Formats: sequence, structure tokens, C-alpha cells
Amino acid sequence: MTTIDLNSDLGESYGAWRMGDDEAMLSIVSSANVACGFHAGDPAGILKTVKAAAQRGVSVGAHVSYPDRVGFGRRDMDVTSAELVADVIYQIGALQGIAAAAGTRVRYVKPHGALYNRIATDPKQGAAVVEAIKTVDPSLVLMGLANAPILDLARSSGLNVVAEAFADRAYTREGHLVSRREAGAVLHDAAAIARRMLRLATDGTIEAIDGSVIRIDAKSICVHGDSPDAVAIAREIRRTFEAEGIAVEAFLPQTAARGRTE
Amino acid sequence: MTTIDLNSDLGESYGAWRMGDDEAMLSIVSSANVACGFHAGDPAGILKTVKAAAQRGVSVGAHVSYPDRVGFGRRDMDVTSAELVADVIYQIGALQGIAAAAGTRVRYVKPHGALYNRIATDPKQGAAVVEAIKTVDPSLVLMGLANAPILDLARSSGLNVVAEAFADRAYTREGHLVSRREAGAVLHDAAAIARRMLRLATDGTIEAIDGSVIRIDAKSICVHGDSPDAVAIAREIRRTFEAEGIAVEAFLPQTAARGRTE
Amino acid sequence: MTTIDLNSDLGESYGAWRMGDDEAMLSIVSSANVACGFHAGDPAGILKTVKAAAQRGVSVGAHVSYPDRVGFGRRDMDVTSAELVADVIYQIGALQGIAAAAGTRVRYVKPHGALYNRIATDPKQGAAVVEAIKTVDPSLVLMGLANAPILDLARSSGLNVVAEAFADRAYTREGHLVSRREAGAVLHDAAAIARRMLRLATDGTIEAIDGSVIRIDAKSICVHGDSPDAVAIAREIRRTFEAEGIAVEAFLPQTAARGRTE
Amino acid sequence: MTTIDLNSDLGESYGAWRMGDDEAMLSIVSSANVACGFHAGDPAGILKTVKAAAQRGVSVGAHVSYPDRVGFGRRDMDVTSAELVADVIYQIGALQGIAAAAGTRVRYVKPHGALYNRIATDPKQGAAVVEAIKTVDPSLVLMGLANAPILDLARSSGLNVVAEAFADRAYTREGHLVSRREAGAVLHDAAAIARRMLRLATDGTIEAIDGSVIRIDAKSICVHGDSPDAVAIAREIRRTFEAEGIAVEAFLPQTAARGRTE
Repeated sequence: MTTIDLNSDLGESYGAWRMGDDEAMLSIVSSANVACGFHAGDPAGILKTVKAAAQRGVSVGAHVSYPDRVGFGRRDMDVTSAELVADVIYQIGALQGIAAAAGTRVRYVKPHGALYNRIATDPKQGAAVVEAIKTVDPSLVLMGLANAPILDLARSSGLNVVAEAFADRAYTREGHLVSRREAGAVLHDAAAIARRMLRLATDGTIEAIDGSVIRIDAKSICVHGDSPDAVAIAREIRRTFEAEGIAVEAFLPQTAARGRTE
Repeated sequence: MTTIDLNSDLGESYGAWRMGDDEAMLSIVSSANVACGFHAGDPAGILKTVKAAAQRGVSVGAHVSYPDRVGFGRRDMDVTSAELVADVIYQIGALQGIAAAAGTRVRYVKPHGALYNRIATDPKQGAAVVEAIKTVDPSLVLMGLANAPILDLARSSGLNVVAEAFADRAYTREGHLVSRREAGAVLHDAAAIARRMLRLATDGTIEAIDGSVIRIDAKSICVHGDSPDAVAIAREIRRTFEAEGIAVEAFLPQTAARGRTE
Repeated sequence: MTTIDLNSDLGESYGAWRMGDDEAMLSIVSSANVACGFHAGDPAGILKTVKAAAQRGVSVGAHVSYPDRVGFGRRDMDVTSAELVADVIYQIGALQGIAAAAGTRVRYVKPHGALYNRIATDPKQGAAVVEAIKTVDPSLVLMGLANAPILDLARSSGLNVVAEAFADRAYTREGHLVSRREAGAVLHDAAAIARRMLRLATDGTIEAIDGSVIRIDAKSICVHGDSPDAVAIAREIRRTFEAEGIAVEAFLPQTAARGRTE
Repeated sequence: MTTIDLNSDLGESYGAWRMGDDEAMLSIVSSANVACGFHAGDPAGILKTVKAAAQRGVSVGAHVSYPDRVGFGRRDMDVTSAELVADVIYQIGALQGIAAAAGTRVRYVKPHGALYNRIATDPKQGAAVVEAIKTVDPSLVLMGLANAPILDLARSSGLNVVAEAFADRAYTREGHLVSRREAGAVLHDAAAIARRMLRLATDGTIEAIDGSVIRIDAKSICVHGDSPDAVAIAREIRRTFEAEGIAVEAFLPQTAARGRTE
């Protein structure tokens, strides 16, 4: 039976400020990328989200970021490797503490925002993230952009990785994301998105923005939940998968042996 | 052979700002109360201090605080229990991550500053700290003020505790610390302080500010390192102990069974 | 012709997090209590709100707070007088800079949340706030709780003050707010609230929770905008006032001479 | 009579953390670049430094930064223009408030650290800083790196500018600073530094690292005070100037007419 992982960014509220509908998304996704306090998330809010994830059996990942709350981690920063290694360790550890208190554990690490984009192709910051993960817990899996160099860099360092695709984004014929600055970069039609993801899950292919069919080898699909429309799209993707007999499951079952995770 | 633990607040630098002489203090103390980022400590600095502690075999504790960096955690805050529980879990977890990366682990928790003073006698915030520790890792020991109600509260909740005395502080005949606002509250004579601590370690008694002799049942002594004078006092205490055949050792050896830690 | 001021807390978004509907509220109120960055508000968001206020001729006040963003300034803090004086000066100055850039100026200061409640009756922190205002710009007006001691304290120090009532709160027969912990403390019926405020604006009286009629000498009424319901209540109050020939105007016209502002 | 301005970065302590010797430096320099809270400086500490500057007649400038306290503003950040404009306005305003409370006013703006280096040559971020200054107070002077494009950009926008040289840095034959990564980039010999600055002040020339003599048109010299050695160098520069009859004076006297400041 074919399975696919759905992941989403959660725990992004901060103090009195709400963001996203974590309860709704936890009924849709199999993996929760939980903010660790650097771009979003306060301890009480993170704990609440991780407890809810644990209750629903949703896998928990550390959504680590540059230290930039006011910029929501979306601004590129020239941090040193020593700073980045320690920042990532600290955030993973904090979420591990929260997870232990919630009766679950952290299974993977997904860098957020500007850090995610930076390490996709920057070997220096990428190596720092890999080093941080290996140092704090080498059984953690790195989630990264399908087709990006970071996946090979991490794999060759001995880390397990999982490649992800983005449900609502167009791809170039080279298999890269179309820049948000270009027309057609972000998709909005729930049914069309669901059909694209179905093809990805079953064939490993997707139609690029120029009409060509390309290969995206992804075991996880990122869906968003920051608006009612986004939640509806995520729900339609899950509904379509289930209607076609594809199971939505965390990419890393608790019984998975190391080395078989991707 | 009599043993005593010496503990000190470390890892209190922040980014470009230095505080204390961690290297010097790590050659004197057996336990390091390491800042977790809420009142002091940035990840890179904390990691450096914890690595140095691990190399010297110094026991690592989480020096958890209210979230008040600009006030250095010294200002009382009316946090809710839910906030405090989550804040303490988050900080312990973050330091556990750092400790794992440094090849060691967190053995105890010592609240810092205003939180330390508040929970000494406030059962609501005290219970929140105890709950946080038990939830994240019930094998962690709570370090608290000798003779303070928090120790009984924690013990009755099933936590191991260790009581500490303050080397450079005067005590009332009731066994409480003399308020810093009063004359004679802080001691400065290194030799006199060392003699007082020797008596504490061997007899479990200390001379109160009114000349009476009181009982302080403490297995750990807090020494400061935030000035050259403070480092010199700490060094004199250790020298005196060693000259008298008292071993300075972490209160919680790695092989200690639970329930025998205090 | 009778006039009344309507004020509301605005500029409370933070980075990527939205709070309240500033545009809607700026079409209702005559005075905007704008967050200054300590409990809410980032510079770009504050600037946007102050520009919108300036365009609509809405008076701008500095909504100063304890430095507690994660707690939204709602947690009591034992800050020293020196810290509080400087924190308030800094926040007023920052908003004055923003206001200058937006082509307007700051006309009053309203402490926020826990600080508001604390200074209502705490003469030490109250004096610090008064000193800060006088030091940075003695022409600024302090907005405070009707019937609270802080108003006399400020007045006797030479500050202009304006007393405010809360539209959606019940009052005790002594003229104090009924604690939120008690039943009936918060009112929800827009029409009933509007009638109460009409009476307050015309007679200076209000019905207390025990049915007695009490005197509340307030020149400004605080309305909320943090939910669609709250915006609807605020709109109903304004509609009622205008239907009865009461003008909604900032309490402090640009041409007002000092000393006649309340 | 020849005059020269000496400027230094002050107000860089933060809460419990000390940095630099502001008292010593205020007896040496004529202009104080005061941290505004984004990379360093808490309100109480900033207020103390600005009061001391006012008492000594030292000119106050706003040392504005990226919002990066843990990185001390030394890390390049890809902020948007809207964010940067508002961040700079906010910081200038905050310092203006502090200055008003201290009985003085802000006379110039000097970007700090990574922002200083970035705008030296980046016209987008440079334009944002210029816009911020013009919007909040067009009489403020921008202090920038001698020979850097930012000075022309600001001048052509109608801002007054002042060019500065760095006392302890080597220059390339093109008039740029030698990168800190290269040998000989930072000078340490107080007497040699003082002689170089004397030549700069009198002839407008300096010996480049390759021995050639180049022109540096600077009306202000930046000296450091973050170590006892740095204070000693600054003192030697001032002593040398005074021995040679060169007056150390703020580049912008209170009586200066606009347009003649550089």
C-alpha cells in the first residue's frame, strides 16, 4: 500500500497572538513542524500544540530558525557556523524537553523560512545544521527540499533525510520551486492541487510550469494552515489520498530502522 | 570521608557581553548552575561553558529563570502556573540538548534570582516548578534554599532535592538569609568565610548574625564568581576544605541511586 | 454641545502576527492608544497605524508597558523606579519619532495592562510614570482610570490628566471596576452598553452592579477592537452618541491651552 | 584654528552586563554614538550615558542598528526597506526621548556594525536609512565612512553628512579600510596612531598599508573604548591633538547653521 506523509508548520502562535488553526491541521497531517521559539512559539503554546500532536499520534519535528522573531525567521542572516550550530542544538533540545513533557519525542528537524532556503544551497550553513543535528541526536531525520543539494550533504554526513514537496507551489522544469515573485508560482485551486499531489505520491512526477513532466522524489508533502483556504486545500489533499487508497502516515514510523527512512 | 558540593552560577555571558570567569570557576566548583537563555546565556556561550564543565567533570544544572533578560531574572513576575511550567520545561530541555551535544547531561535544576526567592515560600509557583521538573525528567534534583518550604514541597511530590547554603551571606537565628538591605548581610573576608563553611561542612552549624549557633543542613554551598574578589573567596573555600581533608564533589555522583541524593 | 472622547488600544500587531482591526477602529474612535514595542507593536506596524491615525485626524497616545512581549504586558513586574522611568521615556520617545515621521505628534500617555492596574493605586510606580512623562514632555496628558488615586497624584505633580471609563465593564457602588473574576464583570449587549455610555456622557453617572447610581467623572471612554463583536459594540456606541447629538472628539484638541484639558 | 571631532560608541551596556568605560570616554571624545536598544543599550543605561554626555557637553548621536541584540548588530540581515525605515525612525525617536529627558538632543545618526558596512555601498538599504532620517528630523546629520558612496547618496538627498576615519585601522591605497581578516588591519601602537591622526587632521592625508599617501577627507575620527588599551589610545590621540593646538570639538556645534556641517 502506498503511503505519503503530510507535514505542516504548527505552534506558530506567540503569547497573545494567534496564528494558524493547529487543531484543524492536526486532524489532517501526519507530521507537525513545531516552532521552537526563535521565529515563533512561546513555551506554553508550544507545549499545548505538542500535547495535541501526541494525542493524535502526529509525528513531531523541530522547526528551527534564525533568531528573528520580529521578522518571523524570514530574513536571511549572516550567522557564524558556531552560532548556527548552537542555535539549532538549543532549539532541538527545547522542543525535546517539551516533547518529553507531552509524552512524545522529536523525530525530525526542518529548518524554517530563510534558514530553510539558505541551507538548501549554502554548504557552510548547511553543514552547521547537519553538525548540530548529529551532535544532539544522530537519530533525528533532516527534512529538506526535494532535489536540493542539502539532502546529499546531509546524507553523506550520515544523517537520515526526507525530501519534501510543496503542495501549493509550481515547479520549474529543472525541479526547482518557481520564485514567488513570478506569476503562477503559488497555486490556489484545491482540486487541482490535490490531483497534482496524487500524481506525485503515486508516480513521483509533477507537471512543471512549462508543461513538461518532471520527477520529484518526495516522501513528504508540505501543506499550509495559516488561512481557512489553506486548511481547506490541505483537507482536500488528504481526502483525495484516502479516496485513492493512499495512507497518510508519518514518514518515520516509531519502529523504523535507521537508514530506511527515506 | 566528608564531602561537600560547591556550586556557582555560570554561562551568564550574553552575546558580546562577558560575565564572570567561567574557566576559573570550573576549576573550583563541583556543580555548575548554567544559565538557559531566559535571564542570561546565548546558545553558543552556553555550549562553550557546558563543554568546559564536561571536560572537567563538573556536574551541570539548569539555572532556570523568569523570561526577563534585561532585568537579569531579578524582578518578581506574576506568571501563571501554565506559563511557568512550560517556561521551566523549555529551559531544561534546551540545556539538555546543549548537554547532550557536549557529551554530558543535566543533573539538577536550580531556579535563578527572583524565581528562586519566590518559590522558596510561594507554594503556587513552587508547585509549578516541581511539576515542570517531574514532567520533563523526574530524575532531576531540585536545588533550593536550606530551611525553605520549597524543599519539603518538592520532596513530598517525589522529587529529590538538595539544600544549599550561601557562602558569603549572613544568617538570622531562625536560619534565614539576612536581607541584603541590612548591614552585615554580605560577607567579604575570604578566610572568615572559609572557616564558616568548614564548620558548616563538618558540623552542619553556622554562627548567625546575633552570635547564636544555628543548624543549616546543606549538602551544597553556593559560591560566586562575578568578580576577582568572588573568585578569590571561592578558591579560598576550596583550599580550606582540601587542607582539612574534605572532598569537594558534586552532590549527585553519576552512580547515585535515586532517593539517596540528599 | 456635549463632546466625548472614545479611545481604543491599537498598533498591537507584531511582525507576522495580526491583532485587532486598526482600520475599522480608526473610523470609530477619536483617540488611539498605540503600542510602543514593549508589549506589542513592531516599528513598521506602529508606523502604519500612526500614519492611518494621522490621516483620519485621530489623536495619538503612547500605550506604554512593562517590557514583557510574551506576556503582552499583562503580568505584574517588580521593576525599579529608575528602570520604569527610563522604560517609559524610551517608549514615549520612540512613538514620538514614529509620530513625527507620520506627520502628527503624541498627545497623551496611557499605561497598558499590568502597569495600568499597578499605577492606579501604587504610588511608587505611579510616581515613576509621572516623572517620566514630565521629564520627556510635560505637555503630555496622562490617561488613567476614573476615580483612581493615580489621577490625583499626577495632577498634584503638575501633569494634565484625563479620566476614562470602560464601556464594557461593570462598576461597584464605590466606583471601581468589578473584577473580571466575578460574574457580570464584562458586558456584552451592544445596545445596553451604548445606553450606559450615553448616560455617562450626558449625566456623568452610571448604574453600578448593585443597581445604585454612581458618579464617574470621565472625559474618555475606552472601547475595544480585538474581535468583530468588540468592533460592533464600539460602532454602536458611536452611532448612539451621534444620534443624540454628542460629538465624538479627542479630549485634547490641538488648540487646547495647558491646564484646561480635563 | 583647526578642530577635529572624536567620536566613540557608548551606551553599549545591557542590563546587568557592562561594556566599555563610558565615563572615561566622555572625558576624551566630543561626540557619543549612543546605542538605541537594538544591538545594545537598555533604557536605564542609555539614559545614564546620555545624561553624562549632556553634563560634559558631548554631542549625542543615535547609533542605530539591525534588530539583533544577541549578535550585537554585527550580522548582515536582509531587512526590507519598509522595516529598515521604521526601525531607524523608532530608534532615533527613542533616543530623542531619552535626550529630551537628559536636557540635550540628538544631533546625528551613525548606523552601527553590519548596517554601517552594508549601507556604505548598498544603495537600497542606504536609501532607507536616509529616508528614515529625513522623515523623522531632516536636521539630523548622517555620519558615515569617508570615501563611501553612502555619503554622496545622502548628500544628494539633501541630508547633511559628516565623514569619519577610523583611528586604529589601516587603509588601502584606494582609501578603503583593510579587511580585518588581513594582517596589519588593526593598529595597536598608541603613539603611531596618534601621529597618523594628527596628519589626518592637519593635512587630510594618511599613509596607506602599501606606503602610499592617500587623501581621507574626514571631519570626525572614531576611537574605541571597549578595553583599557583602547581607552589609552583614545586618550593619547586627544593629548597629541591638544599639544599641537588642535581643538577637539563636536563636528556640529549648537550654533552651526544647516549646510555648513561638513
